[in-house]
Amino acid sequence: MQEVERYGVFEIRLDTVKGGQPPCAVFKRGEEFYTIRGFCENEDEAAIRFMPRSEGVWHYTAKCNGHTLEGDFNCVPCSGVNHGPVVANGCHFAYADGTRYIPMGTTCYAWIHQPPELMAQTLETLKGVPFNKIRMCVFPKSMPYNQNEPLWFPFESKVGGGWDVHKPVAAFWRNLESNIAALAALGIEADLILFHPYDRWGFSKMSREDNLTYLDYCIRRLAAYRNIWWSLANEYDLGFTKTIEDWDAFGEAVAALDPYGHLISVHNWVSIYPKRPWLTHVSIQKNDMSVAFNAREEYRLPVIVDECGYEGNIPFDWGNITGFELINRMWTAFCFGCYCAHGETFHRDDEVLWWSKGGKLYGESPSRIRFLYEVLKTLPGVMEPYASVLINDPNASSSNPEHAAFLKNIMENMGEKERAQIIGELTKPIGRHPDYRLQYLRRSCPVYMDMRLPQNGRYRLEVIDVWEMTREIICQKASGDIRIDLPGKEGIAVLVTRLEGDEL
Amino acid sequence: MQEVERYGVFEIRLDTVKGGQPPCAVFKRGEEFYTIRGFCENEDEAAIRFMPRSEGVWHYTAKCNGHTLEGDFNCVPCSGVNHGPVVANGCHFAYADGTRYIPMGTTCYAWIHQPPELMAQTLETLKGVPFNKIRMCVFPKSMPYNQNEPLWFPFESKVGGGWDVHKPVAAFWRNLESNIAALAALGIEADLILFHPYDRWGFSKMSREDNLTYLDYCIRRLAAYRNIWWSLANEYDLGFTKTIEDWDAFGEAVAALDPYGHLISVHNWVSIYPKRPWLTHVSIQKNDMSVAFNAREEYRLPVIVDECGYEGNIPFDWGNITGFELINRMWTAFCFGCYCAHGETFHRDDEVLWWSKGGKLYGESPSRIRFLYEVLKTLPGVMEPYASVLINDPNASSSNPEHAAFLKNIMENMGEKERAQIIGELTKPIGRHPDYRLQYLRRSCPVYMDMRLPQNGRYRLEVIDVWEMTREIICQKASGDIRIDLPGKEGIAVLVTRLEGDEL
Repeated sequence: MQEVERYGVFEIRLDTVKGGQPPCAVFKRGEEFYTIRGFCENEDEAAIRFMPRSEGVWHYTAKCNGHTLEGDFNCVPCSGVNHGPVVANGCHFAYADGTRYIPMGTTCYAWIHQPPELMAQTLETLKGVPFNKIRMCVFPKSMPYNQNEPLWFPFESKVGGGWDVHKPVAAFWRNLESNIAALAALGIEADLILFHPYDRWGFSKMSREDNLTYLDYCIRRLAAYRNIWWSLANEYDLGFTKTIEDWDAFGEAVAALDPYGHLISVHNWVSIYPKRPWLTHVSIQKNDMSVAFNAREEYRLPVIVDECGYEGNIPFDWGNITGFELINRMWTAFCFGCYCAHGETFHRDDEVLWWSKGGKLYGESPSRIRFLYEVLKTLPGVMEPYASVLINDPNASSSNPEHAAFLKNIMENMGEKERAQIIGELTKPIGRHPDYRLQYLRRSCPVYMDMRLPQNGRYRLEVIDVWEMTREIICQKASGDIRIDLPGKEGIAVLVTRLEGDEL
Repeated sequence: MQEVERYGVFEIRLDTVKGGQPPCAVFKRGEEFYTIRGFCENEDEAAIRFMPRSEGVWHYTAKCNGHTLEGDFNCVPCSGVNHGPVVANGCHFAYADGTRYIPMGTTCYAWIHQPPELMAQTLETLKGVPFNKIRMCVFPKSMPYNQNEPLWFPFESKVGGGWDVHKPVAAFWRNLESNIAALAALGIEADLILFHPYDRWGFSKMSREDNLTYLDYCIRRLAAYRNIWWSLANEYDLGFTKTIEDWDAFGEAVAALDPYGHLISVHNWVSIYPKRPWLTHVSIQKNDMSVAFNAREEYRLPVIVDECGYEGNIPFDWGNITGFELINRMWTAFCFGCYCAHGETFHRDDEVLWWSKGGKLYGESPSRIRFLYEVLKTLPGVMEPYASVLINDPNASSSNPEHAAFLKNIMENMGEKERAQIIGELTKPIGRHPDYRLQYLRRSCPVYMDMRLPQNGRYRLEVIDVWEMTREIICQKASGDIRIDLPGKEGIAVLVTRLEGDEL
C-alpha cells in the first residue's frame, strides 16, 4: 500500500478527463472524511490532491467524467522538518503538531519566474539561511529590476487578448508546485501572493469572475501542500482595479473553498486591511514597528511586518536600509510580541536582486537574523508585549521615587485621548513571559538602566548585542530594584530569566 | 549724552521708590513714542529699561512715586553681533535689521541656578560652539540629575509657606539678567522658559493671579533685552496644575504687556500647543521630524523641534540618542523647512549634564551642527519644503516611465484620506529655493539616484556627507533627467545649485 506522511501530499492522477468537469474524491478514515475537489492539468489530464491529517489507512472514492476510482493509502508519521501546516494560535503561530513556529520570513516575489539555474540557486541559498517563510507571487512582476519575461504564464491567452483562466498552462503550475514542494522539504512556508498590481501583462485587470475561477484553481491544485499560506495581495491598496468588495469576495472564497484552512492574510501598501472573520493574521508593510504593536492590540491576531524596508542600496526608500536598521526593526517587532521579516535589495547590474528574483544573498542581516532566531528558540513559550507605559515601566519607576510618583500622577491626570497617544508613543518593546523578559533598547544608548524585579526570587541578567551577536551574563542572582551597567550603544537587548521565585 | 546701541538696553535707575508703585516712563523720538513700565528691584530701588529701535536722540520722562525725571540719550548704530531681536518671517526667522536668523538651538534648562564657576564655564563653552539660541528656565529644576538647590529663588517666601511674587529677590534677577546680557553679547537668543513642571519648591503650584504678577515682572524687567524669547512652558501638557485657559491667559498677557513683541511659544510633551493669535512660532518636542513638517503646514509659522532627543547615554529615551541620530534629525527637520535643536545628556557622576546645568560639551554633534550651519549659511534665502510626494518626486518619476505612470495613476485614484496619509508618510525632506534644492536622504543608503532637473539650465551637483562633514562636487553642468552615483551610506545630502537657466 502506498505510504504518505501525515501532512504530506497524496495524489490521484486521472487521464480520462477529456474536457469534462474536474474530478473529485471522498477520503475516509474511520469517522473522518473529506470531499476533495481535483483540478485539470490540461484537456486530457486531471488530478486530486489530498493532505491527510491523521495517521492510518485512508480509503478514497474518486469520480471523474462518469468513472469511479477507489483505493487506499497508508498515512505514516511525520518525519524531518514536517510538523504540518502552520496555524494561528492567539497572537502567535504553531505547527499543526503543536510545535512552536517562529516566522523568520523573507521575500522573493518573482523567483519562480526566473530561469531554472537561478531558481536552483535560490533554493540552494535558502538551505544556508535561517528563513522559514518566503513571500512569492503566482503572477510575474513588472517594475524596476523586473523587466525580463517570465518562463511561463499561468493561463493560455485568449484569441483577441486577455487570459483564459479556464485553460491553465501545465508547465507553469508544475514549476510553481514543484518549488512549493521544494520549500516544504526545506521547512519553509510558501506565503503565496495571489494578486499584485505590478503588472504589464493584464493579470491585475481580470474580471472578478475570472479571479474567482483562478483562486478556485489555486486551491484545488495547491491546498494539499502543507506549507501554503494564502496572501491575497501584495499591496492590496495599490490594486486600483479591485475594490474592497472584491478583496472580501476573494477572502471569503478562499476560506470557504480551502478544505484545510490554510492561513490567509492581505498585505497592504498604506492602510492595513480591515479585520475580517476569514483573516487569520495581519501582514503589514510599515517602517514603524509601533504600528505592528497597535495592530496586535486591535486585531488580536498574529502580526507580521512582512515588509519593514529591505536591506539594500537601491534608490527606493523601501529598499535601501542598512542591515543594522533591518535587524533593529526586527528585534523591535519581536519584543512587541509581533514578527518582522527580511528582504534584500542590493543593486546589481544583472538586476538579480534577492527581493524579487532570488539568487544569492549579500547582506549583513541574515547572520544576525539567525542569531535572533537562536535567542528566541532558547526561550520557552511565547512573548506577550509588556504594556510598558510610564506607570509600569521598570526603567522609569524605580530610580527615583519622586520622579516615579510624578509620572504616575501624569498618567492618572491625563485625558483618555492623551493617554492613548502617550501609550502609543512611549510603549517600549519588552516581550514578557512568566519565566523571562526580553527588552530591546532599539537605538537608545544608555550606560546604565534601573530595573524593578520581584523581591522574592533569583533572576539571571544577560546583555545581548544584537549586531555583534554576543550574549553576556552580567548577574546570576538579581532581584528587587537594581541598577545594571550597559554598553551605551545602539542595538542592545536585556534578557531577564527567572531562576527561582516569583514570576516575571 | 549717553550713547546706547540700537536694540541695546537703556536703563534709568531710581532709588526713591520707598514701597510705592513701580515707575514708568515715556520715551520719544520724533513721532515715535513708547510708554514703558519699570520694575522694583527691592523696596527702595526701581528701574526702567528701554530698548530703542531707531537711531537718534531719544527723550524720556519718567515718573516715580510722585517725582518726575527727564533726560535724553543718543541711540547709535548696532555693532558686532547685534542685529536686533529675532522676529518670525513666514515660516522662518530674521533679525529686526533684516539679517537672516537660522536658529541653531541648544538647551541648558537650569544653568543659571548653578554655582558661579559653572555658569562661567557654560558661557565659555558657548563661545566655541555654533549655538545661537539657548532654552533656559527662570525657575529651578527638580528631577534626576537636578538635586542640588539653586543659588537664589526668584521671590521671597511667605510666612507660613508659598512664594510672595510681589517681593522679587534682587540677587536672583540680577544673576538671570546678567546671563541674558552675556548671551546677547555672544549673539545667542535666550529662549526663556517661564513655567515648567519639574518642581519641588512650589513654583508650579502658584495661583493664576500670582503667575500673572510674575509674568508682568519678567516683562517689565527683561523685555528690553533684545535676545529674549518667551517660552511659556517646558512641556505645558505636563503642567497639571494649569489648564489650557491658564496657558491662554499667560500667552495673551505676555503678548499684551511686552512692548517689543518678542517671540512667544509653548513647548509640549505630547500634544503640540494649539494655534493661537499670540503664538509666533511652534516649539515642539518630538522624535519624528515629519510631525514638524505637518505642523508647519498646519500652523504656517516657523517650527522648531526644540527637543528631538538629546545626544547622550542616560536611561531616559529622551536623552540617549547617538550624535549621528541627532544630526540625522536636524538635517531632516531643516530640509523640511523647519528647525531642530541640540541637547546633550552624557552621564557624569558629578551630575553636571549640559542639558540642564551647562558646563562642558562632550558629544560628537556640535562640530556637525557647525557644519550644517555653514552649509546653510552658504545658501541664499530660505528653504521651503518640496511637497515631494510620489507624483512630483524627482526620484520616482524619471527612472522608469512606466513606473512613473503607474505611480501617477495611484495618486489620482486615491481617496482624500489615503492621499493625505501617503503624503504624510512619503514626503521627503527636500528644501527648495529657486536657486537650489537640498535633499537629505536620512538613513537611506542608495548607491545611485535619478533626478529630474530643468532641461533649460546648468546645475551644479554636490554630495554632502553630514557626518564626515565633506562636500564633493560631482557635476558642474547637470540638466534634465540624470542619474547620479551616491556613496550608499546613511547621512547623505544632495545639493543642487542653479548656475544658469530655469529656476529649480
